[in-house]
This record gives sequence, structure tokens and C-alpha cells, in this order.
Amino acid sequence: MASLGVWLIGAAGNVGACTLAGWAAIRAGLLPPTGLVTMDGPIGALPLVGFDKVPFGGHEVGSRTIVETVRGLADQHVLPHAVVEAPEVVAALDAAQAEVRDGYDGLVGWDDLQRIRADLFAFRDRHHLQRVVVVNLASTEPPLDAELPADPEAFLAALRGGLRVPASVLYATAAIDLGLAHVNFTPSTGSDLPALHALALARGAVHAGSDGKTGQTLVKTALAPLFAIRRLPVKSWVSHNVLGNEDGRSLHDPARRASKQRSKGAALSAILGYEPEASVAIEYMPSYGDWKVAWDRIQFEGFGGAAMSLELSWRGSDTSLAAPLVIDLIRLVELAQRCGATGVLGHLAVFFKSPIGTGEHRLERQWQALVEHLLKEGAPR
Amino acid sequence: MASLGVWLIGAAGNVGACTLAGWAAIRAGLLPPTGLVTMDGPIGALPLVGFDKVPFGGHEVGSRTIVETVRGLADQHVLPHAVVEAPEVVAALDAAQAEVRDGYDGLVGWDDLQRIRADLFAFRDRHHLQRVVVVNLASTEPPLDAELPADPEAFLAALRGGLRVPASVLYATAAIDLGLAHVNFTPSTGSDLPALHALALARGAVHAGSDGKTGQTLVKTALAPLFAIRRLPVKSWVSHNVLGNEDGRSLHDPARRASKQRSKGAALSAILGYEPEASVAIEYMPSYGDWKVAWDRIQFEGFGGAAMSLELSWRGSDTSLAAPLVIDLIRLVELAQRCGATGVLGHLAVFFKSPIGTGEHRLERQWQALVEHLLKEGAPR
Amino acid sequence: MASLGVWLIGAAGNVGACTLAGWAAIRAGLLPPTGLVTMDGPIGALPLVGFDKVPFGGHEVGSRTIVETVRGLADQHVLPHAVVEAPEVVAALDAAQAEVRDGYDGLVGWDDLQRIRADLFAFRDRHHLQRVVVVNLASTEPPLDAELPADPEAFLAALRGGLRVPASVLYATAAIDLGLAHVNFTPSTGSDLPALHALALARGAVHAGSDGKTGQTLVKTALAPLFAIRRLPVKSWVSHNVLGNEDGRSLHDPARRASKQRSKGAALSAILGYEPEASVAIEYMPSYGDWKVAWDRIQFEGFGGAAMSLELSWRGSDTSLAAPLVIDLIRLVELAQRCGATGVLGHLAVFFKSPIGTGEHRLERQWQALVEHLLKEGAPR
Amino acid sequence: MASLGVWLIGAAGNVGACTLAGWAAIRAGLLPPTGLVTMDGPIGALPLVGFDKVPFGGHEVGSRTIVETVRGLADQHVLPHAVVEAPEVVAALDAAQAEVRDGYDGLVGWDDLQRIRADLFAFRDRHHLQRVVVVNLASTEPPLDAELPADPEAFLAALRGGLRVPASVLYATAAIDLGLAHVNFTPSTGSDLPALHALALARGAVHAGSDGKTGQTLVKTALAPLFAIRRLPVKSWVSHNVLGNEDGRSLHDPARRASKQRSKGAALSAILGYEPEASVAIEYMPSYGDWKVAWDRIQFEGFGGAAMSLELSWRGSDTSLAAPLVIDLIRLVELAQRCGATGVLGHLAVFFKSPIGTGEHRLERQWQALVEHLLKEGAPR
Repeated sequence: MASLGVWLIGAAGNVGACTLAGWAAIRAGLLPPTGLVTMDGPIGALPLVGFDKVPFGGHEVGSRTIVETVRGLADQHVLPHAVVEAPEVVAALDAAQAEVRDGYDGLVGWDDLQRIRADLFAFRDRHHLQRVVVVNLASTEPPLDAELPADPEAFLAALRGGLRVPASVLYATAAIDLGLAHVNFTPSTGSDLPALHALALARGAVHAGSDGKTGQTLVKTALAPLFAIRRLPVKSWVSHNVLGNEDGRSLHDPARRASKQRSKGAALSAILGYEPEASVAIEYMPSYGDWKVAWDRIQFEGFGGAAMSLELSWRGSDTSLAAPLVIDLIRLVELAQRCGATGVLGHLAVFFKSPIGTGEHRLERQWQALVEHLLKEGAPR
Repeated sequence: MASLGVWLIGAAGNVGACTLAGWAAIRAGLLPPTGLVTMDGPIGALPLVGFDKVPFGGHEVGSRTIVETVRGLADQHVLPHAVVEAPEVVAALDAAQAEVRDGYDGLVGWDDLQRIRADLFAFRDRHHLQRVVVVNLASTEPPLDAELPADPEAFLAALRGGLRVPASVLYATAAIDLGLAHVNFTPSTGSDLPALHALALARGAVHAGSDGKTGQTLVKTALAPLFAIRRLPVKSWVSHNVLGNEDGRSLHDPARRASKQRSKGAALSAILGYEPEASVAIEYMPSYGDWKVAWDRIQFEGFGGAAMSLELSWRGSDTSLAAPLVIDLIRLVELAQRCGATGVLGHLAVFFKSPIGTGEHRLERQWQALVEHLLKEGAPR
Repeated sequence: MASLGVWLIGAAGNVGACTLAGWAAIRAGLLPPTGLVTMDGPIGALPLVGFDKVPFGGHEVGSRTIVETVRGLADQHVLPHAVVEAPEVVAALDAAQAEVRDGYDGLVGWDDLQRIRADLFAFRDRHHLQRVVVVNLASTEPPLDAELPADPEAFLAALRGGLRVPASVLYATAAIDLGLAHVNFTPSTGSDLPALHALALARGAVHAGSDGKTGQTLVKTALAPLFAIRRLPVKSWVSHNVLGNEDGRSLHDPARRASKQRSKGAALSAILGYEPEASVAIEYMPSYGDWKVAWDRIQFEGFGGAAMSLELSWRGSDTSLAAPLVIDLIRLVELAQRCGATGVLGHLAVFFKSPIGTGEHRLERQWQALVEHLLKEGAPR
Repeated sequence: MASLGVWLIGAAGNVGACTLAGWAAIRAGLLPPTGLVTMDGPIGALPLVGFDKVPFGGHEVGSRTIVETVRGLADQHVLPHAVVEAPEVVAALDAAQAEVRDGYDGLVGWDDLQRIRADLFAFRDRHHLQRVVVVNLASTEPPLDAELPADPEAFLAALRGGLRVPASVLYATAAIDLGLAHVNFTPSTGSDLPALHALALARGAVHAGSDGKTGQTLVKTALAPLFAIRRLPVKSWVSHNVLGNEDGRSLHDPARRASKQRSKGAALSAILGYEPEASVAIEYMPSYGDWKVAWDRIQFEGFGGAAMSLELSWRGSDTSLAAPLVIDLIRLVELAQRCGATGVLGHLAVFFKSPIGTGEHRLERQWQALVEHLLKEGAPR
């Protein structure tokens, strides 16, 4: 009996499709586990779920199929053509495609919640699953500025009474209310609401987020501690991002971009302990496709006031950086729930730009915390 | 009674002179302690030596005076003119200048050792010092390829019998033989010989090194852990350095450059756990003066084999980055000896490119180790 | 008798003040003519106005004095302190300060025009000037979107009847109506209106503009021809500017920034012959002061479709780059008028981001056109 | 009757093989003429040789076949797999492969000359060719430091008498002695000897060179004129190259590297009119494959002495940049010879790092000179 199923919101988007193809390719031995942290060392020794026989499904608002998306990634030199055309991979993508349901975007309400619940329920039922991990990989939403009820029952009642919320919140509500695991890999609101924190504890659900730390922020949280450790005051930190995929297109919308900028901006002052002049700009260049470039320029001061600078230019495939983290998160969240955890999984901070459940942004410290937590968590009950 | 004296080898070089001016300027409240790690937080709370009444002296092979050097630094926008001309600073520099003795370069022997010992002895005597910290800030020497006796007495006997060794080794021998503290801030051999390790334990001396971690390697040891943590294989790491000061001039000599390159190259494979294609080039451009630029270009691989890259360009004043570390080291080495330590001070690894006494190169871990060690070390006996 | 006077709009801004100090410093032999193109070679041999005895005046909306501004530039390592404090320079700045009148900003009308005319008239009269060059160095205005009468008399009548126009237009109107020379060193509208083009021809005025080509666009117009010559298609050109001075502050306003972006964006498609994906972002970081950094990232395609890129990072002092161009322009505009030119001086395109009177943006071609024009223009009549 | 044949020295190297595949792909309409300057505009209107029915042959020292090489380029994303595998392209490569003869490297003499002449003669004969263009694409040789006879007959006599010369010289001698056209696309000596200049005039041969301007020097000759035009003194220009293909491997040898550095270093002082501090370093990183990265850092001075900088990082495929130039050169050299030119073709300077026959290095001026020359050269006789 399969004990784990995975439900991807945005299943046919670049990250979703690459996660599916990647899972199948690793299983078939067609790709090495590059970028995964759960395959070797002390974490690799834990009783994590294997790559066999995990059914995948998901919601999707777009019309592309998963196979079309992974072929596009191969055309962009993100995945090898030979891998995306391998029979084992195509079969896995077809199986997942059969489990994809129409997704939701914008503001949604009670009726949509019922349909999402039904989709998740049916998926669990159909595959006789003990556990389901729901991962939000959908496009970034505008920030949620409304005040929502903090009490879970009041929140659910408000929904029933006609309250409409961003789709990411509804997905998280459905998952948590069913006691499933929820991972918010985007800067959208998702499960990060008082009502859903409380609901997770009540229903025995686990959740983690938010916004996968894949590029510029990853570098920033490795580098900023240098200035803190060495007491070199950062005068200004300019960040400029250029990207071209769907994520870039949606971030071209100022409201959605604001969510991303908020998420990307938090780490710096948390690590430095003060607020330098800082900016995070995002530029949409369609021809960049799945490749993104991040430019950072830091001005800092040395002893005697000497004016110094550091410039960085990072070029990477958004999807290639994100997909292995999604695979790791699925395995680690499943382990946590299997070991009896409930509520926020703060030990997973190393995966996120805006980690829920901790104020720790330093990459190395987050990594240490993850390893220590996992070694203590021990065997599943 | 003054209990601590400081002896700088290369006292009138950029770093030596800036250390002297910086110590005086901090004491006089003319400069904030930018770049020092011993002035605040948990380390700042330790009973470290104050900035008052510490006599300085040193050896110097060049003909520039300390005052001339610091004026040159002010002309290059490293130190403010107002600070280097302040009466408190000028007085301190004049006092140190009076304690500067002719230095040594190249291969030296027993007679030179006697003169160095005499200089150090007289300095300690003249100022009634309990402790002296000797810091090597002299130009980089070629690597020492000869095999020297590992037994301290055999080594001293060989010197007496005519053995000639690089000056850095002789300085370290003199300091350690007198039971003083020795810091090697350069990539020269200094105290890092079996005979001197043993001699330090025998004489109750402490020593630390080597090669101050001020620029490119500092960034490298903050950044390389990212690739290790995230299992992103580094395919190649190209490092190019451009510098113009005396350090640059001496590194223009291929033999001396080899020492520096060896020192700069070690961290990467220690952190990554494998040897990527890597190079460290050093270019001497006199017009750069005290300013150095380091360019790094890293190619790495993401999931699916996606080819990614990171480029960094760091521009800083060598001296402004080094001098606060020297000040910190003086204070921490003095504390360690006062607390009863002997031998290598491995907890000071965070200050060095090629830390003696530990294989830990990751900046954040070195920093954690320093703080933990100091908090355990407790009050002086 | 002094034959030339210079009137700077924005006299106490960074560029205005540096132009004044620079003129005096060159005259006194305190600074070499770095960045000036009128001092050597074939242009240097022309009968250009000397640096002696040219009175300066101007309008200014701010409260800083010229001396305060140049001291600020010295503090930022743009000008040497010794030059700024030299008696010859201070005397020249004081003399100019005595000729500074209250300036205008925003929308202005007929009464303001009369006051500006009176200021210019009085300046010319007081110094018995044959010629006056008026240079607009004021902050960037929002773009002018209204349609103004194309006929000069209709335009003047509309002003008399209550029409209000941006200050840059009114300054240009006053200068041209008096038959003076006008240079628009900013992206504001200035003289670039059909009515003022016609008025210049009618009054015997000369004018040139617009927007001094000092940094990123200067590099762009040197580099973009490479891609055109070699038929390497540019897929995208991302430009990011970081600046901190008053110019940066004013460009933080989206309406004013639009003027600048429009001005900066024109060159690329003119040179390439097609419109690549392109963006020009401007970021205000107060701590940058007078220093600006421009980052460009170009993606282009080679034979076979190979994806290539070029990244540039330019760091310069805005004022140090602009002031010598202003001095050159004063001398060349005066020569042109003395030689009998009227209307737009299209041969000065090499100085401007948005050259009036020509579609040529390629730096080398603009330079050739300038030299050829000047050698043909010959001796003044 | 085919009137033109092309003989590539280094036919199965990256540039040779890509030239062959590119010629076939353009002929078959499989690739657009990206990077070629002879296909449109005024040059495109000239009666240049078409892409049909030109036989190719060449010398090769390596054991790779042309097809293997182009497949390697496709694996590295330089050429599309679909193009490389197209029947028209494979057929053309097979035909060329049948015409490849064993090549020469190192020092060679009279007997080798006879064999090279025989190969060329047989190729011309077999295909009934009116004209043959010989292009040197072989690995860079060490600089030729010996003094060779300046008189052509004396030079040939010395060869007959046992003189041994670098292979590039012998290839050029053979081609020129037969009255063919010779293009030296490498920094090796090739035809650039007094004896061969004279021989070309005597035999009615044409020749051009040397060292294709494809990357860093291309950018340098577009950019350096900016500093010359604007009188901004360049204080230092640091150039660092990283490359991984065969060219990189051969340049890892210090003697061969010296040739390349000499070739790359000339442009700067020719354009600026003075010698700034400058360096050109070349680093071999095998994993870069056909991709090269060039980093330049320029420090320059503005008015008042303000210290400014420009950094560039260029990433391109060596082969994709070179091959279209080779195709252009074949067509332009053939045209010149058909039009009656003899000796050095100085108007082709825009294609070369070290142009023979002119001191002009500025890209835009070279381009103007090419177009003007071609429009004057007119129709073939």
C-alpha cells in the first residue's frame, strides 16, 4: 500500500513539472540527486520515504500539460532531452497528468473550498494514502492586507458566510482541515494566518513555508553574516532581479511583485541587526525564459571609514534550483508528520526566504538547526 | 605598570602603521571600532586588555617612517586626514617609531636570532612588561621547502651550527623561545613548524596564524558553504586578484606569490569536500595602491545538470580590512595567555586564511567556535 | 571688454558648482583639463574663448551656496580639498555667487518670463557682454505632454494669455528670445519645441541639447555599435542605475524619472535598427552621494544561436563626468554663434543622450561629425 | 565549373568544423547568417561568391573527425543538434573530411613545404579551381624570435638549405608561392614576414591577418575609443580570460600564451595614444569547454582626479563568434583577388586583433574603412 501521496498546486508549471520529472528520473536512476540535501550525509541516513510508488496529483489553472512544460525546460537547457523523453519519466508524467484537476486563482470562497477538499479527499481515497503532502507552487499572489479572524472556527464560519480569500489561503485551509501536510513554496499567504496555525494544531496537520530560497536570497543569507561577524557596516544593498518565466510575468504586476519584494527583503535586517539602505527590484524580460539573473551591489565601510564594495551576479535556472528543494521538503515533511509533529515545522527554515516559525535567516545556522533537529527527531513512531 | 607590549614585525608597513594609528585613534575616541569583533556583544564583555598604555615597538626593513605611511593611507582615502594628523595619534606614532629597530629579510641565522632576542628582551625590560605579543606583518616570503629538525633543541642546535632560515621563522623562534605570544598574519612560515609547536608548549608561549583572512578568502569561506549545504557541485572556481601596494609588489615575485596562492587555495576543497577546477591568480597594478580588487567566477551545476554561475567583484582597502583584525588578535592572544593557554590557539581560526590548529574553514562555524571557546575560557587566572 | 558671459540654471547644484570651480581651477593652472575635448588636438587649435575674464551668474532654487556645494564634492573625493580652498577658486565662486538670482521650478508663466529676461538682460548689461551662453543644469522635470503652439508668436501670445509651462521651457524661451545661446544639459523639455526652434532662427539664437551623455548611455553608445557591426542580435538589454545625489532624489519621483528613462532609452534602437527587449531602471540610494553605478546586462545571440552575454558595471562621479562637458559646450556654443550659426547645433550630438538635430547616436560617428564640422566651420567672422 | 575552393588548416578543430557546418547550414537554409557581415546592407549587395558548390579541404594534426567535432559543439549548446545531424550538413562534412590531409606542427622545413604545395596543388587541380583561399585556424604557436631573410628568394633558398620555421609560416609560404589567398586567423606568425609580403606581391597572392577579433579584444576596441574621445585617462586595464577548449589548452603553454598576449595587448595603446598599466592573463579551465569568459577592469580618472572604474564580463562561445568571421573573410578575400588586388588586404582590419597593413584598431573606424573600400573596389574585372 502506498502510504504517501503528493499534491502539487501548479502541477504543470515549471517547478511542478520539474519536480514530477525529477522524482521519476531519480527513481529510474536517470539523474543524480544534484541539489538535494536528503540523499547523503546524516540526513540521508534517516528513514525517509523512498522514491518508489508515490502517486502525484494536483491543481492547475493553465492549459499546458506537464509533458509540454518539461519539454520546454529541455529546450532551455534546464533538463536533458534524453531524460524528459525517457519512458519511465513520460509514464510518471502521464500518471500525474491524469490526477490534475482545475485549479483556482484570485479570490475564492466556501464553494471552492468544498471542491478542493473533495479533490484532495478523492485523491487520498483512490490511492489509499496514509499521508498527503500538499505543496503550493502556484503564481505569487498580491499581499493579503485584510484582517481575518484569528480563531479557526470563526474563520471557517466567515468563509461559510461568504468571506472570499486568496486561493493560496483556501488551498492551505483545505489541506490543514483534513490534517494533511502543507508546504507553501511561494510568497503568497498560504497557511501563515493565526487561524490556520491554530487549526493545524487542532487537526494534527503540519505546515511549512514560505517562499523557496533558491537564488538571490540564498546567496544573501550566506553572505550577509560575513558583514555581521566582521562588524563591517553595510551602507546600502541594492538587489536587482531579471527573470523571464511565468513567475517573472506574474511579478510584472506591481501588487504581486510587492509580495515577492516583502519576502526577499526580510532576511537582511534580521541578519545584520539594523536596516541598511536597501532595494529589491524585479525586472521581467521574457527572453530570459526559465533563467534568472540576480545582481547585488553592497557598499560597506571598513576601519577608518574606507568605502568598500562587493558586487555579485548570479545566473541560474529558477526551476533547477527549486525542484530539488521541493523533493526534499516532501520527504522531510512526511517524516515529521510520521514522527508525530504537528503545527509549524520551523526546523525547515533553510528552505525558505520567509521561514515561518523562526527568525533565523543565516544559511549556515539554519542548516545546523535542520541537522540537529533531524538527528534528535529520531525514528518514526 | 604596563602589563602588555606589542611588537610589530613590519611596523612601518601599511598594516603595521594603520594598526598603530588605529589603536591610538580608538583610544582617543577619534574613530569608531569598525571591523573589530572584540568591542561589543559577548566578546566585548570579556576582560580584554584596554587601549590605554600599551607600548608598541617593532622591526622594519624599509626606510619609511610610520607617520609617512599613515599619511600615504590618508591620501588614498583609507584613513581620514584629520585622524592621522591628530596630536594624540601623532604622539603615539612617534613613540612607536622610537621603538623601531632594523628588521631582517631573506635567510637569516644564529647571530640574527641573538639580535632579535636582544631587541625583544630590551623592549620588555624597558617597559616592565608582563606579556609581549609579537605580530608578523612583514612581506610574504617564498615557501619553505627544506625539511627542518622537528625537535626544538635539535632545531636550535642546527641554528647555532649555521642553519639559515627565513626571517619569519627566526622572529617566531625568538618570540616563542622567550615565552611570548606570536601571531603570524602573513602566509610566510612563521611558527608553523614542528619544532616551534613543541617549543611553544615547552616555553609556555602561545601562537596563532596564519595569513589574515581579509578579502577574497573571507568571501570564499562565507560563500562556499552554500554550495556544500545545497549539494550544488562546483565545477570551477576562478579567482583573480589585483593589488598595488607593497604586498602586491612582493607577490609579483613568483616564489613569494606561490606562498600566497597556496594559502588562498586551501579553503575551497576543505569546505566542499572535493577539489573543483580552481585557480588563484594575483596581478600587480601599482596604481591600485592600497586598494585591491578580487574577482571570482564560480560555475556550478544544478538539478538536471543546468549550468549556473556566480560572479563576484570585491573592492576594498587591504589595510583597512587587516588592521582591525590585528588589534583584535592582540587582545585575544593576550587574554588567552593570561588565562593560561599554551601552544597553538586554534580557536582564532576565523581570523586566518590558513588556520593553524584546525581544519575548519567555514566562516560561520569558525565564528561560533571562537565565541563558544571564549565564553568557556572564562576569567583570567 | 569681456565678450562672453555664462549663465547657469542650477548654479549651486553639483554640476553647476563644479563647472564654476573647474573653470577657475583650469584658469589658475590648479587642475589639468581632464575630460575636456576642447583643449588639445585639432579642436584645441581653434580660436575658442579663453578661460580668462568670463563672468558667471545664474538662477538657483536651492539654499546652498556654491562654496558649500564644492566643499561637499571635496568631502566625497570628487574634487581635491586643496583646489576647492585655493584663493583663486574661492574668489571666482564668490563672484559667481553674487550673480545668482532666485530660480524657478514647476509650472511658470508670463510674469516669470519677464523676470528671467530682466535677470539675463541685467547680467549682460552689467558686464557689457557681446554673448551670453545659458546652460540648463536644473533638476529633471516631468515630461511635457501638452501640445504647445508651434508658431513662435502664437506661443508667446499664449504665454501672455496665461499659459503655464515647465520652468525649463521658460528659461529657454527667455534666452532664445534675447538671441542668446542656450544649452539644455538635462532631459527636461528646454528649447526642444517647434516654437522655440523657429524662434531661435528668427532671433539669431543658437541652441543645443539635450541631457548630457555622461555615464551609462555614454558606454552604451560606444558599445552598441559592436553588436550592429557584427550582426550579433541583441535579445535583451537590462540597464540599472543607482545614484544618490540631488539628481537621484528628483528621479525618485516617477514622473521625473519617466523623462530620464525616455532620454536614456532612445539610443539603443537607433543604433541597432530594431527594438530589443530593454529596460532602464533608476534606484535612489542616498548614501551613494555624487557617485553613481550603472549596471548593464546584455544577452545576445551568436552564430548557430549560441546564447551569449555581456555585463558591465560602471562607477563614476556624476559631477566629475558632467562638468568638463559643460565647459566644452560653453566654448563650442560660443564659437558657433561667433561664426554666424543660428538655430540647432546638431554637430554637438556627442555631448548628449538625446541629441537635437540629428539621429546619430554612435559615439565614434558623433565624434567624427564634431571634428569635421569644426574644421570646416573655420575662423570666426 | 567551381571557381573557388577553401583550404582550412585545422579543419577538424572547433572553428574549422563550425565553419564547414555553418557554410553548409546557411547554404541549406538551416541557419540564419547571424554574425556574418557579408549578407546584408551595402556589403551584401556586392558580387560575393555564393554558398553553392565550394569544395573544402584542409590539413589537420588531430585525430578527431569533423563530424565528431560538430557533435561536441552541439553537446555544448553552440550549434543545434538538428542542424548538425541534417543530411545536407553531414554530406558536406563528409565531403570535406575526404579532402583532409595530415597537418604539421612545430618546426618544419623544405620537404614539408613540398608536401603542402602538393596537397594544395592537387586540391586545386582535382576541383578545377580558379582560386583557393587558405585559412589558418591551427593552434597558436610560440612567437617567432629568429630573424629570417627579408628577400623572398633568399628566404626560399634558406628553406631549401635546411632552415626550419614554424608550421604557420610554411603554410603561408606554400599558399603565397602558389599565388593563392591566405588568411591568418591565429596569432601565429603566418604570412607576416617581410619575405612573404614581398613574395605575395611577386606572385599576385593576397593575404590578411592576423588573429580573429572575436571576444575581449572586440569589446576593447569598441570601448577604448570612449576614453580617448572623452580624454578620460585610463590608469590601468586588467584583462583576465578563462577558456577551456583546445585553444585554451594550447595557451596553457607559456610560450604559446606569449603570442596571444602580445596580439591581445597591442590595441589598447594604439587607441589611447599612451601605455596605461595593463595586463592580459589567460586561464585554462577545461570544464569551460568552448565557452570563454573575459573579465576586464578599467580604472580611469575624471575631472578633478575623481577615481572611476568600469568592469566588464563577457561570456561567449569562441567558435560561434569565430566561424562567421571566417566565412566572411573567405568571401571578401576571394572578391579582392577576383578584383585584382595583390599583397596585404589592410581593409579587412575589422576582423583581426593584430591587423596587418594598418595601425587602425578602433572598431567603428575599421568598419567604416571596410565599407568604404568595398564600395570603391567596385565590380570584379
